[in-house]
Amino acid sequence: MGNCYDTSNNCLINKAHDENIDLVWDRYEKMKPQCGFGEMGICCRICLKGPCRIDPYGDGPKEGICGADADTIVARNLVRMIASGTASHSLHGKEIAKTLLHVAKGETDNYKVKDIRKLKNIAEKLNIDTEGKTINQITEEVAMASLMDYSRLENTPCNWLSNTLTKSRLKKLTDLGVALNNIESSVTDIMSRTHMGTDADAINILLAGLKCALGDYVGMQISTNLSDTLFGTPEPIISESNLGVINENAVNIAVHGHNPLLSEIIVDVADEMEEEAIKAGAKDGINIVGVCCTGNEVLLRRGIPLATNFLSQELAILTGALEAMVVDVQCIMPSLAKIASCYHTELFTTMPDAKISGATHIELNEKNSVENARVIIKKAIEKYKMRDKNKVLIPKRKSKVIAGFSTESIIKLLSKIDKERPLKPIIDNIVNGNIKGVVLFAGCNNVKIMQDNNFVTMAKKLLDNNILILATGCAAGAYAKNELMNSEATFKYAGEKLKEVLTLLGKEAGLDVPLPPVLHMGSCVDNSRGVDLAVALANELGVDLDQLPLVASAPELMSEKAISIGTWVATIGLPVHIGMLPPVGGSQLTIDVLTSKLKELLGGYFIVEENPIKAANKLIGIIKEKRVDLGIEPTAKPSEVV
Amino acid sequence: MGNCYDTSNNCLINKAHDENIDLVWDRYEKMKPQCGFGEMGICCRICLKGPCRIDPYGDGPKEGICGADADTIVARNLVRMIASGTASHSLHGKEIAKTLLHVAKGETDNYKVKDIRKLKNIAEKLNIDTEGKTINQITEEVAMASLMDYSRLENTPCNWLSNTLTKSRLKKLTDLGVALNNIESSVTDIMSRTHMGTDADAINILLAGLKCALGDYVGMQISTNLSDTLFGTPEPIISESNLGVINENAVNIAVHGHNPLLSEIIVDVADEMEEEAIKAGAKDGINIVGVCCTGNEVLLRRGIPLATNFLSQELAILTGALEAMVVDVQCIMPSLAKIASCYHTELFTTMPDAKISGATHIELNEKNSVENARVIIKKAIEKYKMRDKNKVLIPKRKSKVIAGFSTESIIKLLSKIDKERPLKPIIDNIVNGNIKGVVLFAGCNNVKIMQDNNFVTMAKKLLDNNILILATGCAAGAYAKNELMNSEATFKYAGEKLKEVLTLLGKEAGLDVPLPPVLHMGSCVDNSRGVDLAVALANELGVDLDQLPLVASAPELMSEKAISIGTWVATIGLPVHIGMLPPVGGSQLTIDVLTSKLKELLGGYFIVEENPIKAANKLIGIIKEKRVDLGIEPTAKPSEVV
Repeated sequence: MGNCYDTSNNCLINKAHDENIDLVWDRYEKMKPQCGFGEMGICCRICLKGPCRIDPYGDGPKEGICGADADTIVARNLVRMIASGTASHSLHGKEIAKTLLHVAKGETDNYKVKDIRKLKNIAEKLNIDTEGKTINQITEEVAMASLMDYSRLENTPCNWLSNTLTKSRLKKLTDLGVALNNIESSVTDIMSRTHMGTDADAINILLAGLKCALGDYVGMQISTNLSDTLFGTPEPIISESNLGVINENAVNIAVHGHNPLLSEIIVDVADEMEEEAIKAGAKDGINIVGVCCTGNEVLLRRGIPLATNFLSQELAILTGALEAMVVDVQCIMPSLAKIASCYHTELFTTMPDAKISGATHIELNEKNSVENARVIIKKAIEKYKMRDKNKVLIPKRKSKVIAGFSTESIIKLLSKIDKERPLKPIIDNIVNGNIKGVVLFAGCNNVKIMQDNNFVTMAKKLLDNNILILATGCAAGAYAKNELMNSEATFKYAGEKLKEVLTLLGKEAGLDVPLPPVLHMGSCVDNSRGVDLAVALANELGVDLDQLPLVASAPELMSEKAISIGTWVATIGLPVHIGMLPPVGGSQLTIDVLTSKLKELLGGYFIVEENPIKAANKLIGIIKEKRVDLGIEPTAKPSEVV
Repeated sequence: MGNCYDTSNNCLINKAHDENIDLVWDRYEKMKPQCGFGEMGICCRICLKGPCRIDPYGDGPKEGICGADADTIVARNLVRMIASGTASHSLHGKEIAKTLLHVAKGETDNYKVKDIRKLKNIAEKLNIDTEGKTINQITEEVAMASLMDYSRLENTPCNWLSNTLTKSRLKKLTDLGVALNNIESSVTDIMSRTHMGTDADAINILLAGLKCALGDYVGMQISTNLSDTLFGTPEPIISESNLGVINENAVNIAVHGHNPLLSEIIVDVADEMEEEAIKAGAKDGINIVGVCCTGNEVLLRRGIPLATNFLSQELAILTGALEAMVVDVQCIMPSLAKIASCYHTELFTTMPDAKISGATHIELNEKNSVENARVIIKKAIEKYKMRDKNKVLIPKRKSKVIAGFSTESIIKLLSKIDKERPLKPIIDNIVNGNIKGVVLFAGCNNVKIMQDNNFVTMAKKLLDNNILILATGCAAGAYAKNELMNSEATFKYAGEKLKEVLTLLGKEAGLDVPLPPVLHMGSCVDNSRGVDLAVALANELGVDLDQLPLVASAPELMSEKAISIGTWVATIGLPVHIGMLPPVGGSQLTIDVLTSKLKELLGGYFIVEENPIKAANKLIGIIKEKRVDLGIEPTAKPSEVV
């Protein structure tokens, strides 16, 4: 079994080995065997009496030195992961909200409100009265209502929580005491209650984890919506994906990370500096390519090609044709610095909270971003002259991608069929079974799983069963690279009924071809778009989210953000498939809470299944169950009952 | 070598073994060998590609699967510890501030402003204009100015940071970019930047750790000052300490944890319910005893005897004479539930964020605290009837304690000597060398160190060298139990010069005996009192904190709070001795930053020394150096130069 589902990358992996460069897969092999205590979550390093380890099988310690048992230790470790994920996504949102506030106050020339309609829609959603107010006033109020979710003292739910879910969901969360009021307080609460000798009741700890994870959700809503306001709401757009998008005849600059505040400016400035690049000998000028979620952001809004998702980020440098990699925050392998030093590539860090030893740090903020983006691109152009042609190897493969499926663009498309009730065509097709259900794929790649394999394998099976797929983040990257986000994929993989629907929709959309069977909704913070669509459907149907034939899956999860996302997705009522067990194996109680107790409480829950075919079958089964419960699917005929 | 410096506890340890009950020392022995990767900080469990482990000696991995090196891994783990410590102390402060706000708004009858003078002093300190305002108005403004430190959006320093340090210190912190503006944002920042693939520059990470640790300091200032407002500012008070304070003829209730919101009410309500206890057969009524910092809080303000500090908390139950242990937050061994179940003792948890499996949860808040305190005490009285006399074993030893040395009470005492310049007598005695310097002892017990041994051994050596000792938290507990907080200790241990000063001060204070040589300043949040005194001295002398002959020591550190405290103490300029290496051994860079680079930047730094005699000698040397630099100590005579 190779490292990547996409074998076109293998030439670069071989090249790395020829050049004695270790890649993520090599470091993984060298790390084996990995610590079993850590894998099961039963290693505690929370105080200096430790480290402690619970013996899960033998007659070794069943409790830590303080007396904490495996359940407490596992739950504490897990919620600290949630806290980190929530902190990451919510800070992303806060940065955007602060920038929007600077825009409102006229404190920056580098950003402006691009999508006024979206701004007004947000104001309406947040119950902000816009009557007689200027755009700047509305912008300020939207920014402040968002920032309030990071600082509220009162115990009323976050604005972006109470105004974005179904009413019955909000009530369930409130009744359970997890309707989050303040993101940063919740992260702080987790770090406090997991201190030595504070919370030692695993269920109490896990409930706090649910509440904190909702901060990840709120942070995502803010990130997506305010980014759309600043940079435009995505519309369907055609581009390409895979390492083949790196252009031998251009100054290639990869933007990598998560936050569009930086990459949008880089794309703008690159346009202005084309001539300089051509003068330096790059006949095709400047070629910006995306990596990870920063890549998704600029793919959706600007049509920038997506070079790769998480696990193969190092390979972009291995092509030998990358002049610069410009990174912001999250999921940036520190190894990039060392690998870049083997090439002419310059690695730029740009955020104050994300430096890398060995990289060049050029900080971008709302005041200097254009100016410093120029400095970075200038340096990249210089680097082009130092490119060693003998070291260039760019895999040829690239696939066509139709991206840009924001909730707004989907509804706009549907309203061409039914202007009054745009969701009706989707609902009708779900009710009549042409679309059996929907799976939202999200999450990362993980070196323990062949890159993209679970995504692609599951998608093919689900599509064949007439299940529509939405994708974000590295999931979207996997589908973009592997030819699942274009019309050909609809012909190839969609079941007959689904194909009909996608063909009809494509026609109504004014395309001559079917819509892709996997809709690219954006970066990992854009999971909020999936929720918006689901909430709209639930409200239209008069049901709660846990009743929809809608399931989420992170079959290659890796980061703490994936843990926090998965947790809030389950908390708002959706079944969540994950492709490997997080470090909770040491606590049966924790496993029970996440996979079953949660279902009783909130409707959502986790399903752990490593085998992608089995996982797809489980999701098909769950969707069928949900359809039966909704009364839109006949139960098994007597003859089918065993 | 025994487990405790105080051998009077040994009978209870033996009793536990006879009864087949495991204590913290037993669980420690069973945990050996502890994981060396964890101990060195080079185990990373931050994402699901891992766990990763760096091989510090052999030819195993030198970087994690993502490429993070030992420096990054160690720094990330360390600052997450800081984040937890900061979260804990700051939430403690936030609870108090919220209660004060409820008081101001007339939303609770259970609390009131007891110390109006302190309230007004705080208002003045925080630049709140009190002219023509009611007490409720001032109270509300003080509460809000404090809560602002948890929510501020602007990048201006926290109120409790900018108004409590020397001007030059604030400038140094601002110049370095670590002048904290918002505690909860900083905790969130740490959890975000330590996410996989964000900050991979150990120095950048550690700087963020300094900033976050200042949130621990701000939280402490708020905790101490607002607690004084609600419950009174401590004055010298006489009490007793050690397990001997448990009274065979009383209903014994231990209050344990950290937050005085609960224990103050318990003490009040117990007074009212004395008769009920006597009726139940307890001729001495109700006897409240303290454990850990909750114990320190009620010792300082109410004279409640202190039964024990951290490491021997389990032994309080082993006496067989404890009817109830009522706990709030932090440093509460989960083992207490199991041990209590072997006795008639009932363990009560009282805070929503700190439950323990097996304990009875009766939640106390500002609305119901009196009512629920009655329920708890009633249950304790019931339990008295179930006490098994055959299982009772109370060590006889108890020592006399003079506690209650708040900054205010020290200044009040000194003002009897010099009303105009109350600090002058102290300064004169420091300058003339009667007091060579001051060491503030803080921090925990750790099972890896014989309980209290480092505290006591170091104190004896330092006192003999005419160095005055201040103590808080478990350090104060160690000195209280071990006869170092009374006048006899001054005769026994203080050097001649120091003895003279303490005798004079005792006389001026209207006592007939010398002041104790170790001054009990309060619980671990009351480290803020030590800073207040130091800042007052520095301002009087016109120097910054790093120039004072003042050193801090946590010779038996254990918790993440100890890491955060130690970090801010170094950040505000003081040398900090620690009695064991925290999990940073795997990164020479981190060690260098903490023990030397920090000194260049801020004056403060860490000194690691396990041997208490060597540690005391090092502190004596540092104090001498500081005195030489201040020009109040002659440098070595030529003949002494080697």
